[in-house]
Amino acid sequence: MRDFRHDHSALALNTATLGHNVEGQGAGWPVERVIDACAERGFGGIVFWRREIGKNAVAIGRRARAAGLAVAGLCRTPFLVGPLALRPLATLMDDFHASIDMAAALEAPVLTIVVGGVEPETKGMADSLKRVGERVAAAAPYAAERGVRLALEPLHPVYGGDRSCLVTVRDALDLCDWIDSANVGIAVDVYHVWWDTMLADQLRRAGRHRILGYHLCDWLAETRDVLLDRGMMGDGVADLKAIRAAVEGAGYDGVCEVEIFSAGNWWKRDPGEVLDVCVERFRSVC
Amino acid sequence: MRDFRHDHSALALNTATLGHNVEGQGAGWPVERVIDACAERGFGGIVFWRREIGKNAVAIGRRARAAGLAVAGLCRTPFLVGPLALRPLATLMDDFHASIDMAAALEAPVLTIVVGGVEPETKGMADSLKRVGERVAAAAPYAAERGVRLALEPLHPVYGGDRSCLVTVRDALDLCDWIDSANVGIAVDVYHVWWDTMLADQLRRAGRHRILGYHLCDWLAETRDVLLDRGMMGDGVADLKAIRAAVEGAGYDGVCEVEIFSAGNWWKRDPGEVLDVCVERFRSVC
Repeated sequence: MRDFRHDHSALALNTATLGHNVEGQGAGWPVERVIDACAERGFGGIVFWRREIGKNAVAIGRRARAAGLAVAGLCRTPFLVGPLALRPLATLMDDFHASIDMAAALEAPVLTIVVGGVEPETKGMADSLKRVGERVAAAAPYAAERGVRLALEPLHPVYGGDRSCLVTVRDALDLCDWIDSANVGIAVDVYHVWWDTMLADQLRRAGRHRILGYHLCDWLAETRDVLLDRGMMGDGVADLKAIRAAVEGAGYDGVCEVEIFSAGNWWKRDPGEVLDVCVERFRSVC
Repeated sequence: MRDFRHDHSALALNTATLGHNVEGQGAGWPVERVIDACAERGFGGIVFWRREIGKNAVAIGRRARAAGLAVAGLCRTPFLVGPLALRPLATLMDDFHASIDMAAALEAPVLTIVVGGVEPETKGMADSLKRVGERVAAAAPYAAERGVRLALEPLHPVYGGDRSCLVTVRDALDLCDWIDSANVGIAVDVYHVWWDTMLADQLRRAGRHRILGYHLCDWLAETRDVLLDRGMMGDGVADLKAIRAAVEGAGYDGVCEVEIFSAGNWWKRDPGEVLDVCVERFRSVC
């Protein structure tokens, strides 16, 4: 297990931590200012959201790398199934391709997939997961041609209805097995998986080539808003060191991406302070 | 699989469906009126909460049976671990025993255990689950002497922080294996397990003697209040027939207990209407 006590070069910022994934939230810093603030503090990487990038993907990617930051990924594809998915399917797949194009232009090696919830007029997970598999399999060659890997991110089961019919690492790996493309793997986010006692076993099953991202935050014991009340590392009940041991035990040696949705707390603070706390907590409790 | 289309004698009411688990909620009917309303509609059983029973357990149990209702269970033990658990441990165990005494006085064959969340000053599930196992094992003989079975109920992972470090049927069965008492099993609640693609396999592992209860409601696709916004059967995305097929496939042939926490909808309606809808949905979609 890597020792981060005196080295946070593996730390990456997911810009959602500053509220930049939601219109009107956070301090609203321009992306260039966020890049500089991360670089000044010695972050090793950054992960953007599509809404920040617009038509400037090539320039922003270059800007980040020039500042010394790896562009570690892009959030995210459209929902592929469920009540929030784009319709008709052709429109959805066009947007899926557009997200791949943006990742390629940024030179981000990984595009995160949040799959969407239970398909209308169906019950349970099975039908929806099957459609997710078909749609990811259909897009995987397009992504591979552009040097982009697709990371299926299982979300916490609380999102099962509307945002993600994919809720465990086990199900995500079953889906990877079914899709069977070298550029399709998983992203592991503490918020979504901390409760899962099968996690370490499933990560061993995944192996290093299928773990495409590791996301940090914490689960607050008394979480009430399950969308926008994530905790800073150390403030919750997730066993962060045990989870990282399992992730790294499976061979993962990439960046650790801090991604904290926190409308009531961290998004209201000065971004510089938030970044400083990320560094301190990364070194001490992750 | 049983055919309920023309027979709802396996339907039981958990009185939480009328808001009776929370002070000031629901229509506030006396327990005798609830019993009569269920009996009139042909319910086969009823499950009470401790706060309704007070010192009248023997009389209420007799009253229910005289009306033709089985007293199928009692909700519930105190939280055994986590931030909401009683302290010190002696006080907690006294209350655990008091809940067993009440179940025995009601002649309720099953007492539900909601285990509580992550123990303060610990991280992750492992330490807390171990303490749950120790505390249930300590109380199991006391319950066995009084003819009471203890049903470990895994709750949805959204409650992992504060209300239940036990979040899957798999973990509940692991705990049963460890406790190794004939009167300790599990309760299966649709709300908590609907997302779990391992459910059918784990229920087969459980077998008929360890499934001590089956609870019905539904998961609303856009659930926001994860405590008090459960759906009526048929209004959500849970695959109710598939789940019951798995429960009965494992050998369960007991009552199906409707338990809907719904402060914003069902608790505001006339209880007679709620019970009528329960019967109709039980016959048509469960």
